[in-house]
This record gives sequence, structure tokens and C-alpha cells, in this order.
Amino acid sequence: MRLSAYFLPTLKENPAEAQIVSHRLMLRAGMIRQTAAGIYTWLPLGWRVLRKVEQIVREEQDRAGAQELLMPTIQAAELWKESGRYDDYGKEMLRITDRHDREMLYGPTNEEMITAVFRDNVKRYRDLPKILYHIQWKFRDEVRPRFGVMRGREFLMKDAYSFDLDPAAARRSYNRMFIAYMRTFARMGLKAIPMRADTGPIGGDLSHEFHILAETGESAVFVHRDFIETDWRNREVDYDDDLQPLVDELTGKYAVTEEKHDPAMAAELGDKLVCARGIEVGHIFNFGQKYSKAMNAVVAGPGGESITVEMGSYGIGVSRLVGALIEAYHDDAGIVWPEAVAPFKVGLINLKKGDPRCDAACETLYRAFGSDVLYDDRDERAGVKFADMDLIGLPWQVIVGPKGIANGMVELKSRRTGDRQELSLEAVLERFGV
Amino acid sequence: MRLSAYFLPTLKENPAEAQIVSHRLMLRAGMIRQTAAGIYTWLPLGWRVLRKVEQIVREEQDRAGAQELLMPTIQAAELWKESGRYDDYGKEMLRITDRHDREMLYGPTNEEMITAVFRDNVKRYRDLPKILYHIQWKFRDEVRPRFGVMRGREFLMKDAYSFDLDPAAARRSYNRMFIAYMRTFARMGLKAIPMRADTGPIGGDLSHEFHILAETGESAVFVHRDFIETDWRNREVDYDDDLQPLVDELTGKYAVTEEKHDPAMAAELGDKLVCARGIEVGHIFNFGQKYSKAMNAVVAGPGGESITVEMGSYGIGVSRLVGALIEAYHDDAGIVWPEAVAPFKVGLINLKKGDPRCDAACETLYRAFGSDVLYDDRDERAGVKFADMDLIGLPWQVIVGPKGIANGMVELKSRRTGDRQELSLEAVLERFGV
Repeated sequence: MRLSAYFLPTLKENPAEAQIVSHRLMLRAGMIRQTAAGIYTWLPLGWRVLRKVEQIVREEQDRAGAQELLMPTIQAAELWKESGRYDDYGKEMLRITDRHDREMLYGPTNEEMITAVFRDNVKRYRDLPKILYHIQWKFRDEVRPRFGVMRGREFLMKDAYSFDLDPAAARRSYNRMFIAYMRTFARMGLKAIPMRADTGPIGGDLSHEFHILAETGESAVFVHRDFIETDWRNREVDYDDDLQPLVDELTGKYAVTEEKHDPAMAAELGDKLVCARGIEVGHIFNFGQKYSKAMNAVVAGPGGESITVEMGSYGIGVSRLVGALIEAYHDDAGIVWPEAVAPFKVGLINLKKGDPRCDAACETLYRAFGSDVLYDDRDERAGVKFADMDLIGLPWQVIVGPKGIANGMVELKSRRTGDRQELSLEAVLERFGV
Repeated sequence: MRLSAYFLPTLKENPAEAQIVSHRLMLRAGMIRQTAAGIYTWLPLGWRVLRKVEQIVREEQDRAGAQELLMPTIQAAELWKESGRYDDYGKEMLRITDRHDREMLYGPTNEEMITAVFRDNVKRYRDLPKILYHIQWKFRDEVRPRFGVMRGREFLMKDAYSFDLDPAAARRSYNRMFIAYMRTFARMGLKAIPMRADTGPIGGDLSHEFHILAETGESAVFVHRDFIETDWRNREVDYDDDLQPLVDELTGKYAVTEEKHDPAMAAELGDKLVCARGIEVGHIFNFGQKYSKAMNAVVAGPGGESITVEMGSYGIGVSRLVGALIEAYHDDAGIVWPEAVAPFKVGLINLKKGDPRCDAACETLYRAFGSDVLYDDRDERAGVKFADMDLIGLPWQVIVGPKGIANGMVELKSRRTGDRQELSLEAVLERFGV
């Protein structure tokens, strides 16, 4: 993409309305714009990141054996009356009346709807287990939306739902999603810590939150040092294995949010205890028969008997993750994207637009990198170009200037480390295998 | 995907509520389920098709130089008061009041919102032209939703918006989208006919609808035979060329819906006139300054003067296209997917589950085809397997039975033609290049 044509309205100044760094940087880098309180338009650069995050989430759900479908955003109130949550949910639920005066709502989550889809279409024990998921926009009418996409009203969520014949099988589904979450966050370069959690209005007795660590995180967390030091990225997992030992290993060590911190543990763990800042990006629940009983989700067993299915639900805040990634990866100059979620891999800077050698070298590089490059071909000062490129945080910058190119050389800069190298044009192409 | 594990609830009987063939077949093939009037859940098989259609639409928008972003589903009513459409839109607009008693709505289209996004972020004439698009769920509260996804209330639409400095440039953007639409439908195997259209509540004076032809189409259309005989699929287009001659060629021939048909043309065209059935799948508008004037979308010109931008909008009903494709491609046994949008390319049928040679051959084929195969590994009668595979309409069936496989042979069946071939296992793999 050529920056001269790209819709990328960057801002020099910090917007007054943004209180946290990810919100500030998403506005400044031209990733989002607010269109109503807690409701955002994702501009092209932000949309590219959101899509990459979504795709990693999708691939890891698929790998764990979950199947993707898509439920609608608008739901009938009757469904929620069946489960009893319609009245409980309160003002966070966006309630709607349609032209025929039917009560509808914008889904804040989908336990009821997926239970109805399952109940109406799955009848036999042989069709279980099933894990179904979708990636869809949700709405929660927060009383004070803030922090940009971290606590918006309309937000993109991946929610999966498992259906099993008995509690032991339900635990296996839970473990699959548990491990899928660890892999998902690790692939994005995030250090995720699972923490035992309360189940709240979803219900059930087994639940974990996943917090990723970021210096500017929303809440204090206390975690065993081993969590910090274990790298999940290259860990191979076979989902057909018994995953319980791995889950036990990951949940056997101390990891809690501030509210649940036991000061006695500080003494016990000594320097094995790390106090850090965390951001909640996922939450999983095993809630047994709470919805299947209320909504009569049963299948016929081998002898024809009725089996009320065991369920769990598994959420990842996809749009929230984009903000969380920036909280984890930024510096004073702007965003520092991990490669897996970067909107473009390479930013190409032409320091002297109109200089035939600079232009020719840039065109060669631009064609070679294809869709993975953002080419700053604007007629702007070098300082503006450097500042914008640092702000939007692409992992690599290739800088083409008249002096270097006279000797066939360009500069390669790592956004993360700031390291710069002089390389020939050919060496750059070779370095990226293009 | 193994069918024994796949969430594919096919139906033997025609559902009583479905009046048209695409609705019947989408329900029977386990592609969708209604969750409220005119609101559907896309089950895994339907979701795969919707994604493929969406991706073709996206690629052709990108190729034509449009840039993707994502606007939210929920909009503030104020935006629509600026354009004057809030009161005009009537009961089809789903109106919502949030917890702070602010008037909101579920977007039925996005002219107002994109105009505001543009106005707030683009200030200089040098930043034009721009074509911005998104693929997002919309809601229109139809008084009588029917025909499945063909006239649902919550539906997926691609809507693009162009911004230009003067009418001539706006016409160039219009032409780009016009040609992109021809390419988009052709890639899906659809014969699309552009027809001069009224602009209705969107406004403006230049507009075309795109109708695809299907024997079971919703309305009669009268078109010049040349449209039927021209194949767009292999036509190369350079979007930097002047596209006007091509658009003139495509709009110079007679093509109208029944309401606009002039009986005198029948005499004039003779056997060059074809009466067919059509389904509207796209609509494009050039509406000049209608929204930019009302909402003050201006940029500074070369001399600092204010230029009110020229706009157009360009819609494709993405979820509607899935229904339209089935109207165009089905037979008595079920759906007949064109390869470009088929949920899987190959259906693999194991006629004797448990037979070691059949099982081994199927596993070999299953691994080789990867994500492009649906493997019927169920313990069902052959007749059930054949019927289900014909119903869901994958382009190719590979049938593995004990007699053939004893000689190393399997059967390859084309769903479209019904042609069957006996081939060796190796020849099948070679045939598909896997």
C-alpha cells in the first residue's frame, strides 16, 4: 500500500479524551475513531490488525477441534426468559423493540442462543462431543464506556461453547480450550497467565481468567516467577492426548489478581513471587447443566434414555486484545507490533521522493514486498516520515536515501530494538525472502 | 472435516416454512437455522460459503483500489438527523434507546456514518480520490421477512463509498465499482446484468442495479442476448485505464426489469431479446453532493478554497448472494456449488466403514485433500450418504467401495454433470494436484 493513497489519518498531538496509552496510540496511529460513546470505526490500519488477531484466534480454535459458525447479533428476548437471565441482566443489555412490538436485544453473549441451536438440531449421544464457536460483535451498554476498545460498548468477541455427555468429558473440552487459549496468546507474543476465577452471572463452579502482562495493565496481579519464564510459543500440543497434567501444571502455581492476593503467600514464595500488571483477555467457564436444564437441551443415550448435556463457554475479547497488545508493546515513540499481528511487516521510507534512484529502488522494494509493505511515498519531510513510521510501529523499516542509494545501499531498522544496518538492496530482499 | 464429527444437521423433508428453493435447500443442507423472524444462525457449512463469497467480494474491492475498514453496527441518531433521513426512513429502521436515553439505531446502510468519518479526517484535496468499504451486518426491519437469507432482517452487506473532487472524477470511481461488480459476480460463476435503476431514498441521478440470472429468480427481466453470451470471467481489466468505453459497452444494450420493460423493444430486438428471471444482488449510486452538502464534507483545494466532495455508494448483498447462488445452481437432488464458492471442493464417501481397505484408502485421500474435503465416515447406508452428498452439492464426489478398492480403483463423480469415472487412487490425487 502506498501511503500517499492510504486512509491513515495520524495525529501529532495526544487526544484529550484518551486516558490510557493504547487508546491514545490507536487514535494517534489512525487505527480507530469513535463514532458514539464506546462505539468505534476501525480505520484501515486498525482493521488489518483486528483481522490478524481474529485469524490467530480462529486458527487455534480450529486446531483444538472447535467448529466455526455465526450467530446473529440480534436475539429474541424469549430465549433469555427461558434461562431466567432476561431480568437479571440489568441495564448492560441493550433492549430493543421491533416494529411488531416484539422484545429483542443485542446479544451481550450467546449461551442461550447456542443452547437453543444445539437443542433443536442435535438429538443423539453419538453426535457429542461438540465445541462450537463464533466471532461476532457483541454489545454491552456500559454505564461509563472508556479506555477505547478496552472497554467499549460494541466489541468483537470469540465465544465458544462445549457440549458433552458427562462431567469428565466436559472437563476434557474445558482443558482443550484452556490449552488453545495459552497457544493463542503465545502466538501473538503475549505472556498469558491463567487465574482461577469467580463464575459470576454465567454460573458454574470451574472458571479461569487469562491475564496478559503489560506494564500499563489495568490491575495488579501476583504470579509465580515460573509463569514469567516459561515460553509457550514452541510448545507442541496434541489435543487427542490427556491434557489434564498440562493444565494441572499451569494451574498448580500461584497466580491471582490483587483482590484475591493472600499476603501470607508473599512470605512463602519470597523472590519466586512477581507482582506485575495484568489485562484480562479471556475467560472460560464450565457451568455444567445450568443452561441445558433450564432450556431442555437433551440427547438420547445409547439405551434411549435422556441425557441432559454438560456445557462450558469460552470467551476471548478480540477487539480488546488489540488494545492489550499495544499496552504490552509500545514505547515513547509509538506502537511496537509483534510480527504476528503487525498490520504490515515492513515500512518503506523514501527520503527523497522525485530522486530517480530513490524512486526506482523504492519501486523495486515495493513490488517485491507485495501486500506486506506500507510505502511512505508522500512528499513530506524526513522527520515527519520517521515519526509516523515509529508511531504506527511496523516491525521493520527500510529507509532509502540519496546518499546510500548512490552506493546501492539502504538502511534496515528494527522498530523493537532500534538497531540499524546498512545493506545492499539485494541483501534486504534476501533478508526477507522476497 | 470428518462428517461423523461435523455439525451438519441435514433434513430429509422440505421444511413447511420455506417457499423458495434456496431457502428450502439452505435449511435441508444444514446451512442455516432461523433464530427469530428474518434472523438466522449460519451453521458451519453455510458459514464456509458465506466466508468464501465475502472473500471474493473483498478481493475484487481491493483490486479496484477500494480500502477496507469497519464501521460499527450501532449508530447515533444524530448522524441521520444531519442528513435528514432519520424521519424519512420509517419503520424499516430498527430504533434503539440506550441506558442514557440516547437515540441510537442499528445501521441499515452507512452513507451518514462514512460521510462523518471522512469529514472529520480528510482535509486536503491531495487525499482524494478515496473509495472506502466495509463488510458488516445490517438490519432492516422488514414488515414481512421471508425467503430465508434473500430477504432477512439481519443481513451481511458490502457497502463502499467514494469521495471525489468533481463529477468527472466521481464518474471514474463509479466506473471502477461498476467493473469490480462485473468481475465479482463472474468469479462466482454468476451471469450478472447491469440495469439502469431508480435511485430511491439514497438519492442522486445515476444508478445501476446488478441482477443475476436464475430460472427461479424473483422477477422477470428483459435483456439483450449479447449479455447472456458474453463471458466475463477471463476478461482482464486495468483499473488505471479509462473504463468509460467498457461501461458504455455494458450499458449500451437493452436490459430492464419487468416494470420498466417497453413492449416496443420486443418488436425491435426480435430474437435478440431474452426474457429471463433475475435476482438483484448489487446496487450502485452516484449521488453527487447530497450527503456532503448536508453534512459539510469539504476539503481544502489547491488555492485553499473549500470543495464539497462528490460521493457515490456501492452495495452488494453478501448473505443474499448465498441464496442467489443456490437459486442459480441447484437441481432436484440439491445444491450444485460452483467451485469458487463451494464449502468444500470434494466429498469423500466411504461405502463400507470398517472395511480395512476402504478405511485405509479414505484416510489416504482425506489427508491428501486437507481442509478442502468433507469425509463421510459415518456408519450409514450408502443411499443416505449419496443423498446427503448430492444435497449439500460439493463439486466433486470421490466414492470408495470394497469392490473397486480391491482393484485399487475409486469412483470420481461430478456433481454438476453427474459424470462418473473409475480412477486409481493415484490418478485421483493427481487429478486434483494433491
